Amino acid sequence: MPDLANETPDLADERVDHRFKGLPPDAEGLTVGELSAQRRNLFTGGYTTPVLALSAESVEHNLRLLETYAERHGLAFAPHGKTSMAPQLFDRQLEHGAWGITAAVPHQARVYRAHGIARIFLANELVDAAALRWLAAELDADPDFRFLCYVDSVRGVELMDEALRAAGAVRPVDVVVELGAGANGRTGVRTEAECAAVADAVGGVATLRLVGVAGYEGTMPGADAERVREWLHRLVGLAADFDKAGRFDPAVGEIVVSAGGSEWFDAVAEVFEAIPELSLPVLKLLRSGAYVSHDDGQYRERTPFNRIPEEGALRPAFRLWSQVVSRPSAEQAFTNAGKRDAAHDLHLPEAQVVRDARTGEIRAAEGVTVSGLSDQHAWLATGPGADLEVGDWVGMGLSHPCTSFDKWQLIPLVEADGTVVDHIRTFF
Amino acid sequence: MPDLANETPDLADERVDHRFKGLPPDAEGLTVGELSAQRRNLFTGGYTTPVLALSAESVEHNLRLLETYAERHGLAFAPHGKTSMAPQLFDRQLEHGAWGITAAVPHQARVYRAHGIARIFLANELVDAAALRWLAAELDADPDFRFLCYVDSVRGVELMDEALRAAGAVRPVDVVVELGAGANGRTGVRTEAECAAVADAVGGVATLRLVGVAGYEGTMPGADAERVREWLHRLVGLAADFDKAGRFDPAVGEIVVSAGGSEWFDAVAEVFEAIPELSLPVLKLLRSGAYVSHDDGQYRERTPFNRIPEEGALRPAFRLWSQVVSRPSAEQAFTNAGKRDAAHDLHLPEAQVVRDARTGEIRAAEGVTVSGLSDQHAWLATGPGADLEVGDWVGMGLSHPCTSFDKWQLIPLVEADGTVVDHIRTFF
Repeated sequence: MPDLANETPDLADERVDHRFKGLPPDAEGLTVGELSAQRRNLFTGGYTTPVLALSAESVEHNLRLLETYAERHGLAFAPHGKTSMAPQLFDRQLEHGAWGITAAVPHQARVYRAHGIARIFLANELVDAAALRWLAAELDADPDFRFLCYVDSVRGVELMDEALRAAGAVRPVDVVVELGAGANGRTGVRTEAECAAVADAVGGVATLRLVGVAGYEGTMPGADAERVREWLHRLVGLAADFDKAGRFDPAVGEIVVSAGGSEWFDAVAEVFEAIPELSLPVLKLLRSGAYVSHDDGQYRERTPFNRIPEEGALRPAFRLWSQVVSRPSAEQAFTNAGKRDAAHDLHLPEAQVVRDARTGEIRAAEGVTVSGLSDQHAWLATGPGADLEVGDWVGMGLSHPCTSFDKWQLIPLVEADGTVVDHIRTFF
Repeated sequence: MPDLANETPDLADERVDHRFKGLPPDAEGLTVGELSAQRRNLFTGGYTTPVLALSAESVEHNLRLLETYAERHGLAFAPHGKTSMAPQLFDRQLEHGAWGITAAVPHQARVYRAHGIARIFLANELVDAAALRWLAAELDADPDFRFLCYVDSVRGVELMDEALRAAGAVRPVDVVVELGAGANGRTGVRTEAECAAVADAVGGVATLRLVGVAGYEGTMPGADAERVREWLHRLVGLAADFDKAGRFDPAVGEIVVSAGGSEWFDAVAEVFEAIPELSLPVLKLLRSGAYVSHDDGQYRERTPFNRIPEEGALRPAFRLWSQVVSRPSAEQAFTNAGKRDAAHDLHLPEAQVVRDARTGEIRAAEGVTVSGLSDQHAWLATGPGADLEVGDWVGMGLSHPCTSFDKWQLIPLVEADGTVVDHIRTFF
């Protein structure tokens, strides 16, 4: 493992203190870098429960897997940074060939810029005047900063133009028209005719440049392989039509076509490989984010690698450790991790292993099921064979990386033998 | 309003930067105290969406209401701090007569101690050796630090004793036996006989002192007024029996009896008022936490004040402002706040008002319903009469204070006219 902390010295210099749950109380006052250098053991090094651990090996594996996947399929990659909001992981993603990092809201772009990210794809329309003022200043201060965002309405174009003019923006903001995925999908223009109207609006203002088309297939109601491909073909067709109509700004030197969350990147790869030749080189931009930690729920079920096992397999990298604080009956046990600590929006955590408080041995969590979460407790249902006692640690798998990362501000990066080799800072 | 920031100078000195979403980008580098002193307007002062606002007047009202409620009913009050994890609000709660602050996990107690809280009730069994080592050091360093926690098992007592002896603890740790609320409730000893066994175990070690009994009625399956009262009577009976049997340590000078979340404090007040005379004064400790912000969902429905309107009414203090970023059809709109920004574990947010981007006027959100949340988007269903456009801000009420506070690290405290008078720092 490279020493991640050394690459982002400001994060390594952060003081370990009460702000960061799970970290050893006796590390108070050390810097993160100093604590990481001690290579403590997660179980015996003073970490307190609950504590979320991220597997160093699994993260490394996942980083490599998507890097080679994107390379093999001729895709540029702007992993969605909202998943982890962790600059140390962004650095690793960029080292593994990423073109840039995707954001959902301007606050995230601010975090990225504070950590030196040079290329940002904001997968949203941006009509917040204060955020646009910030963006204009950022673009004008750094000619190497590449920024793209969606437009999906004529009104949005008006608001952007108004705010950018008021801010005295010098560089235009590059935008892509968002094509909505499905008639009742999330954001995005519903029809090609409306897309043309939005493109016309962009063409009519000096503060914006139209550089491509994009969208997100992940929230399409009733999505299946056929409908996703159909929509991707519409997106590619829109790019071709816009190109023919001379709608893209030739000064940009490329045309951006972007899609792809963590459920359908196989379809994105397939359809984007067949993009016809356009008047400029095409930046085929994939934006999957959940792969970096993967999970033991939503994405275990839905990853495209289930359909294309010959291309590899992601590894779940999270394990949430909490401690049994109550064992009131043979059927019940409670640990000290709850909604504040575990993703709970898609599935409950999965009890996987037990670390015996008496022996330190780790065994399968046989007969143990998470049946509910309170704010600060997990409710465990225990079957007749369950071997579980007050004081034992229960290691859980989680479902949904985005709502796992966001419950922790400093996450131990742990090797298979329990050695903590780094601590990953998040910014939510 | 008193200037909260001045009372906690370390928090007022915190720098405003990219770590804190929603805050004005052009305030970067100011301290929190300096930004608060500018008394900016939430809508026109550069705050970016989404942004969670806490009503200064409603918080003040709620603080006073529970203060007078507790006084009137002869209750000591240790509001559950896990709700807000905001030392500035703890200070206000203590100014409003609170005895101390309740915590759920030792990490929270660390945050409290870092901000000078002198009395902490940890409403959980504490068997984490590293956390107990920290606690022992904290107790031994400060003779004025009062700490209480649950015990609910003989094994728990063994683990506590073991860890405290290993830590060389000098002062004993004060514990209360937790009586479980209901046979299938959450933590807590299920029967009086088992409670006695746990008390015996405490009596057998020098590192612990038994000072009372406690529990939590809020997660009792099938809780209703009758069952809650029945359990509260059992709790009081247990205190009386333990007292008769001489189980409480007389050196402590009082007996602690504690219960009460945010749904049943009327029952707690009623039953605790009738606690018979014991051999020592009784500290009747209520622990409700959600009242400080109240809400527009779970606690709007379940607050005891619905049953006792003559004693007052809490006011919802949160409003989450987000901006319409897409209006793809007459039936749909999307704002830029999602699961990362809004509580979503009990109910979806409630669209309440719209701030018109063209006029700045605020009107009722007629015909607008939140139908779902993605990670970073709210899905709005809009009826025929809905007047909503890209750029408008939508103000939403939230359900569940605990999962609202924990999504924000610095929350503008806003007066009715939109003036931001302070910023509340949270530590999750």
